[in-house]
Amino acid sequence: MKVFILGGDGFCGWPTSLHLSNLAHEVTIIDNLSRRNIDNELEAGSLTPIKPMGTRLKTWRETTGHTIHYERLDVAKNYHRLLTLIQDEKPDAIVHFAEQRAAPYSMKSSAHKRYTVDNNLNATHNVLAAITESGLDIHLAHLGTMGVYGYGTAGMKIPEGYLPIEITTDDGQRVRQEILYPTNPGSIYHMTKTQDQLFFAYYAKNDHLRISDLHQGIVWGTHTPETQLDDNLINRFDYDGDYGTVLNRFLMQAAVNYPLTIHGTGGQTRAFIHIRDTVRCIQLALENPPERGNRVQILNQMTETHRIRDLAKLVAQITGAEIAHVDNPRNEDSENDLHVHNDLFLDLGLEPTTLQAGLLEEVTHTAKKYAHNADKTKIPATATWTKRQKPGVPTV
Amino acid sequence: MKVFILGGDGFCGWPTSLHLSNLAHEVTIIDNLSRRNIDNELEAGSLTPIKPMGTRLKTWRETTGHTIHYERLDVAKNYHRLLTLIQDEKPDAIVHFAEQRAAPYSMKSSAHKRYTVDNNLNATHNVLAAITESGLDIHLAHLGTMGVYGYGTAGMKIPEGYLPIEITTDDGQRVRQEILYPTNPGSIYHMTKTQDQLFFAYYAKNDHLRISDLHQGIVWGTHTPETQLDDNLINRFDYDGDYGTVLNRFLMQAAVNYPLTIHGTGGQTRAFIHIRDTVRCIQLALENPPERGNRVQILNQMTETHRIRDLAKLVAQITGAEIAHVDNPRNEDSENDLHVHNDLFLDLGLEPTTLQAGLLEEVTHTAKKYAHNADKTKIPATATWTKRQKPGVPTV
Repeated sequence: MKVFILGGDGFCGWPTSLHLSNLAHEVTIIDNLSRRNIDNELEAGSLTPIKPMGTRLKTWRETTGHTIHYERLDVAKNYHRLLTLIQDEKPDAIVHFAEQRAAPYSMKSSAHKRYTVDNNLNATHNVLAAITESGLDIHLAHLGTMGVYGYGTAGMKIPEGYLPIEITTDDGQRVRQEILYPTNPGSIYHMTKTQDQLFFAYYAKNDHLRISDLHQGIVWGTHTPETQLDDNLINRFDYDGDYGTVLNRFLMQAAVNYPLTIHGTGGQTRAFIHIRDTVRCIQLALENPPERGNRVQILNQMTETHRIRDLAKLVAQITGAEIAHVDNPRNEDSENDLHVHNDLFLDLGLEPTTLQAGLLEEVTHTAKKYAHNADKTKIPATATWTKRQKPGVPTV
Repeated sequence: MKVFILGGDGFCGWPTSLHLSNLAHEVTIIDNLSRRNIDNELEAGSLTPIKPMGTRLKTWRETTGHTIHYERLDVAKNYHRLLTLIQDEKPDAIVHFAEQRAAPYSMKSSAHKRYTVDNNLNATHNVLAAITESGLDIHLAHLGTMGVYGYGTAGMKIPEGYLPIEITTDDGQRVRQEILYPTNPGSIYHMTKTQDQLFFAYYAKNDHLRISDLHQGIVWGTHTPETQLDDNLINRFDYDGDYGTVLNRFLMQAAVNYPLTIHGTGGQTRAFIHIRDTVRCIQLALENPPERGNRVQILNQMTETHRIRDLAKLVAQITGAEIAHVDNPRNEDSENDLHVHNDLFLDLGLEPTTLQAGLLEEVTHTAKKYAHNADKTKIPATATWTKRQKPGVPTV
């Protein structure tokens, strides 16, 4: 298969590119290096020492014999170049990671809100318009988020994208329908993914594009079998208050003797997936595209749910770290349950990496090994959702 | 009241500005003149001879003694200027018409799709971010469209924004909920308005902005009492295949001895409202803002529904015009019923201008009077929704 990976330099995009290339697919990474540029802005960086793209690709070629192509361009802005690449290369599939993906970053200021909206919506729409203009039958696999659903339900497990409902008509009859699950995004970032869904529904209906939208949980872990082949192939590990995901932050905090920062009560329940399972899910999605003319195929890309304070306890037990309850910078419910269907990926053969199996390895192989790169001042989450919230800073 | 009218130079924005100014509200028009610039691109123009903004405002001042302020800026791009205007002037309300509003124009090419998405979504989001950043309690009234609902239902009248549904929980209980009506947009333009709804829901929830979203039907007519005060105040009348709305197109076609062009069977049913009622609805919406902290207030801004072929027959009866069934350039159902609730505006005191009462006046006072300005080559609708559709050109 010939595959374009939009955002192939990022935390999920890079290991996905290697995984697909290792399966002998012909991979082209398209990326504007925005994630590295944001590191410059935030004066924060990956705990792991990631290499420039040139070094990454040269090492990959020398290690495996596989060539990954690379084009530096901004998918949200350079429409015509994106179109000509599609027309010239005729990819079978495009994997779309090319969006600003951190909720806290999207809430830092008006400028960050505006960048997230402008970048994410134009990037997604440009890809759809370009595939349509090319006239080619290309399968688009997009990284959505579990956050489109919100974190409360009316008492049923969250379905995979579509909700069966009943409506009462004017003459009193009950009619069954299946609708796109009503969204309830918790940040500007999550909101853009709910708007992406409407792009997809429209282009699937009007232009019969084949689209898979993968509603991913919070990703944890760092390594995949491919990124571990050489130090030059190492993946990002973000721990700062904007880009670090909660479990990786706990692991890193434990490694540098910083208290595990729980926002509020820690009663929030979230969905999780290991990065090794992310790359496998993308592979499974590409191998199982929807039929042309069908509605968007939506899959929940997560393997387990956990309450945040339980996660903190687990990490504290393994590592002996202390726990600090800090202010919650987010505007969200302090407690919620979360039950999610993920049968589609399990039916396709996904074998989940469980937290129990992977945690200890991650602490020792990554967090402790690279702890000397940490800048502790970058740990607190400082972006507040409104002026009513306060930053999540522990009183040390 | 101090009111900003974003897009106050357009077909709906201009008469709204005059109407509110005439009620002694302090009105500031903010517009980048994009509609006039698109006239240049399309080499098409208003049937009525509209005047430059300077002439319009000078005449208004001399005729009524009221001053309307004017700032030329692009709401989708000039965020900081928009913010400083809000901070300096502290408006009580902002009326947001500043979006590309023609479905056919939004489907002309990838470039037109991309412009519509980029302009409409960034414009709406900039307004919301700026109100939030200002910290002021400003009521935002936005022009949505009946097209967010789509044109088919499960057998109930289309409600005003929110749909009561029942969900069955995992333990078999039925739970009632009220959700944002599931959208089914028929064009890129309509899609952007469904995405606007998600912006509004988010900012109402997170930042407690007061927002009214007015889902308007197809506007017909030209004049309001205020635009008729002087020839220099005349409103636009679009008849071209991109910007002309169906009923005004029929009236103009009759006036210039061109067949009334019905796309496909004409079995499509649509909602309508006269421009006189549009300006009155905006007034009523501004006088009745939602409470701070409430969900978005959604009102259906329409007064009657008609099947397209029935409208053509009516105009043909009045004028003696011929009817031509042409190809439908749109990708849509050939027949649909449409039943709509519009109680909210009726309860607030709206007295609808009916088609029967207004049609003949419009034909003689506008279409015939300015028929000599018509360019018949601009009448056919040529923008096709996909490569499968064909332009709507009559064989004369």
